Amino acid sequence: MSSAQTDVIVIGGGLSGLSAAKLLREKGLDVLVLEARDRVGGRTYTVQRDNVSYVDLGGAYVGPTQNRLLRLAKEFGVKTYLTNEVEDLAFYQKGRTHRFKGAFPPMRNFLAHMDLNNLFRLMDKLGKEIPAAAPWKAPDAEKLDNMTMQEFFDQHVWTKETKAFGSQFVQVNVTSEPYEISALWFLWYVQGAGGPFRIYATSNGGQERKFVGGSQQISDLIAERIGPGQASIIEPRCVSRSAGETSVTVQCINGQKFHAKYAVVATPLPLQNKMTYEPPLPSLRNQLIQRIPMGSVIKTFMYYKKPFWRENGFCGSAAIDDDGAIIGFTLDDVKPDGNHPALMGFILADKARQYVDMSTDERKRRISQLYCKVFQSEKALKPVHYEEMNWLGEQWSGGCYTTLMPPGFLTKFGKEIRKPFGERASREILHDLGKIRADEIWQDEPENDEVIAREFVSTFWERNLPSVPGFLKLAGMTSLLSAVAVGAFLYHRFK
Amino acid sequence: MSSAQTDVIVIGGGLSGLSAAKLLREKGLDVLVLEARDRVGGRTYTVQRDNVSYVDLGGAYVGPTQNRLLRLAKEFGVKTYLTNEVEDLAFYQKGRTHRFKGAFPPMRNFLAHMDLNNLFRLMDKLGKEIPAAAPWKAPDAEKLDNMTMQEFFDQHVWTKETKAFGSQFVQVNVTSEPYEISALWFLWYVQGAGGPFRIYATSNGGQERKFVGGSQQISDLIAERIGPGQASIIEPRCVSRSAGETSVTVQCINGQKFHAKYAVVATPLPLQNKMTYEPPLPSLRNQLIQRIPMGSVIKTFMYYKKPFWRENGFCGSAAIDDDGAIIGFTLDDVKPDGNHPALMGFILADKARQYVDMSTDERKRRISQLYCKVFQSEKALKPVHYEEMNWLGEQWSGGCYTTLMPPGFLTKFGKEIRKPFGERASREILHDLGKIRADEIWQDEPENDEVIAREFVSTFWERNLPSVPGFLKLAGMTSLLSAVAVGAFLYHRFK
Repeated sequence: MSSAQTDVIVIGGGLSGLSAAKLLREKGLDVLVLEARDRVGGRTYTVQRDNVSYVDLGGAYVGPTQNRLLRLAKEFGVKTYLTNEVEDLAFYQKGRTHRFKGAFPPMRNFLAHMDLNNLFRLMDKLGKEIPAAAPWKAPDAEKLDNMTMQEFFDQHVWTKETKAFGSQFVQVNVTSEPYEISALWFLWYVQGAGGPFRIYATSNGGQERKFVGGSQQISDLIAERIGPGQASIIEPRCVSRSAGETSVTVQCINGQKFHAKYAVVATPLPLQNKMTYEPPLPSLRNQLIQRIPMGSVIKTFMYYKKPFWRENGFCGSAAIDDDGAIIGFTLDDVKPDGNHPALMGFILADKARQYVDMSTDERKRRISQLYCKVFQSEKALKPVHYEEMNWLGEQWSGGCYTTLMPPGFLTKFGKEIRKPFGERASREILHDLGKIRADEIWQDEPENDEVIAREFVSTFWERNLPSVPGFLKLAGMTSLLSAVAVGAFLYHRFK
Repeated sequence: MSSAQTDVIVIGGGLSGLSAAKLLREKGLDVLVLEARDRVGGRTYTVQRDNVSYVDLGGAYVGPTQNRLLRLAKEFGVKTYLTNEVEDLAFYQKGRTHRFKGAFPPMRNFLAHMDLNNLFRLMDKLGKEIPAAAPWKAPDAEKLDNMTMQEFFDQHVWTKETKAFGSQFVQVNVTSEPYEISALWFLWYVQGAGGPFRIYATSNGGQERKFVGGSQQISDLIAERIGPGQASIIEPRCVSRSAGETSVTVQCINGQKFHAKYAVVATPLPLQNKMTYEPPLPSLRNQLIQRIPMGSVIKTFMYYKKPFWRENGFCGSAAIDDDGAIIGFTLDDVKPDGNHPALMGFILADKARQYVDMSTDERKRRISQLYCKVFQSEKALKPVHYEEMNWLGEQWSGGCYTTLMPPGFLTKFGKEIRKPFGERASREILHDLGKIRADEIWQDEPENDEVIAREFVSTFWERNLPSVPGFLKLAGMTSLLSAVAVGAFLYHRFK
């Protein structure tokens, strides 16, 4: 069996592990990246095919505030292009499509509008109160953490329409259901992504751009640069780690052994169960990695001869609120050169679990039928090609997009996660080796000079519209009739 | 690397894996049991020491309805003895000890009593409506499953005292907190253990007996019988499984490879993450094993010269409802011959996570100080020995006593679990090989002829006492004064 010595072993060749390795390499250390798959990139996965050119079957979108990724892309000359949002967005509900512009779809009645406005104002307010680096210190942290998002909606949302949109908002942002996640975690996560508007929006938000040529390029290019010389990427699956006083040994399934001064584990948390540890992990860490599963999503692409939705005045973005609909969220996926027009659609959370054992042909059929209704064109029924990626079945990712935290997890186990990782892990090592100062370990990322975050400006009515109970109280004070008059007045004003 | 061929490989040498192997062996098959630890028994773990004789640091208790285990014990001549419950039980609350007899401690006021009665009547009723083999078919299954036990208590419990006891009931039965578990799962689990009275009771309940000589003996004796001949138990850690059309290959970390016609995986579900699979697991199974963690408990034993609690008229059982108390539940642990008197105490769920990084000496000190207050004797402060087992840190168990199911898991992933395991897995294999009929696969276990389940008889008042809201409605109908009179009357009757 082979046996090699290096400075640092990085376990996991996704973006996190590779960016850690790159940083160490730049400081002159020997680095070895271990990856279980026969490719790097992890949850970014770009596939080349004749009939689609290339397609991002995994993580694809990037937008303002994601400055670390934007910096890496720029360094390697990977360009971005805008996700199409020129024409109308679609909101599909109860068998009907409603056109709209902006981040959130319009609610169909006044109470629901007030309710939605109040919900997102509240989520934004609570999110801002949660310290990014110590969410367990938020006001009412334990109360919010011991509650699911479902409970949060039950407590704060009054209308069926807003509750349904709240669920869809959870599903599309974290590929899980409101009943399975901690409210504290979700509010913290959304805030970490720039707030409820930034995370959900296309323009000025998380889905603003895609990478020309696909997102996996960035990992491929890092891997190429750190190369097979002093740092190398190999395929065997890592299975165990044993820590000596001043060194770490990693043994892979194929029997290969590697020794290093440090190891950085850069895999999703649940996959850390796949390794065995000698000595065993600390107790809380041993239980933590059992408690933080990956989300559930199947990413689909339906290809057409022409972007028929644009012809109908739709940009391709749709939020779909329908129990029977297989897809929850779509975006235009036409290539920057206008070729290979497609609609990207997510099968999310419970829907992913429900439809995962169906045949690919049957999924394709249901999706094209749904698109026919959502984008109001029979042309949707005649796709020329279909691609999909079932992340639920991926042994070396566990799921996508990310981990989810069940109720109570963050306040009880959260601190165990805030251990160094990625580039920061590398800087902890560099500091330990005397190569950088302690105050250089934590580094804010300056804003990218091309992809700029603009503030989401709220209107007077968004800030001041009452909540549903507030409105009903008002109604109680004035009599139902005059309240209806006030309602009609307000409705007229914000319309 | 060695390579061997057998009929069936069983992965996991706990009671489940060993009983599966035993059954197959009895039908003439070659069986190989793979175990990661250097011992069998899994979560049963009996340690021999001079100053304690022996002690069950893992699963220890057995009672009526646990007929499979009782049958195995009898077959190997392992005897049981009664957990002492002669003297009074203790209920410790707000710094005071209250003596009682029976399964549940008395609530200190009338509303709380009515509330507790109503809660357990409701849990029993709902539990009985849940089909044991298909809990997702229960009335309102999805609603109950998407709700945590915390929400269930918030909806159905009116008094602080009953809510606190409800939490303690969850903690001691499933070593987890109400906020992290599905209500449907908990009600189903409790029902599977014979209902809320059976699971919690000592006499006529789950803690009625212990095994003379310790519970691990049963595993040791099965392992000894199936022996190192045609069936054998080996130590290497199993790391991967690849399934051919008609055979299975299991490769261990040390490189050893084994081939078989069938494999039975008999490890806790979260530990199935530790293996790698070729081909990969089905999608839902791949995500299921990330979503079902093990509970959190530290089992402790405080040894004394004499069982001073008995001298004070306490049997040794205590339910402790106190946020600052390290222990939540105690039982007498005097050996059947009267030697090595000890109090067994569980550090449960959040308390286990809170106190796990404390030094053993500090835990010991806090526990003896608590026992001094609970059992009202300074003698508690002078233990002669202390034993404990931190199950949170066990890599090859993940935790104890068992898995817990977070909200939504059972209705969405549950069917994936009802795949054959243990003795039933063996019978599936025997049927496949033509050795038994299809109708012999599922076998009910006849009741043990020594350990008999007696019915828990409810009183007229337990059946008919109103709930708190029912009582308040009654109060509203009659005026507060007369309601108080009714209350006083009822209180007098059931006292």
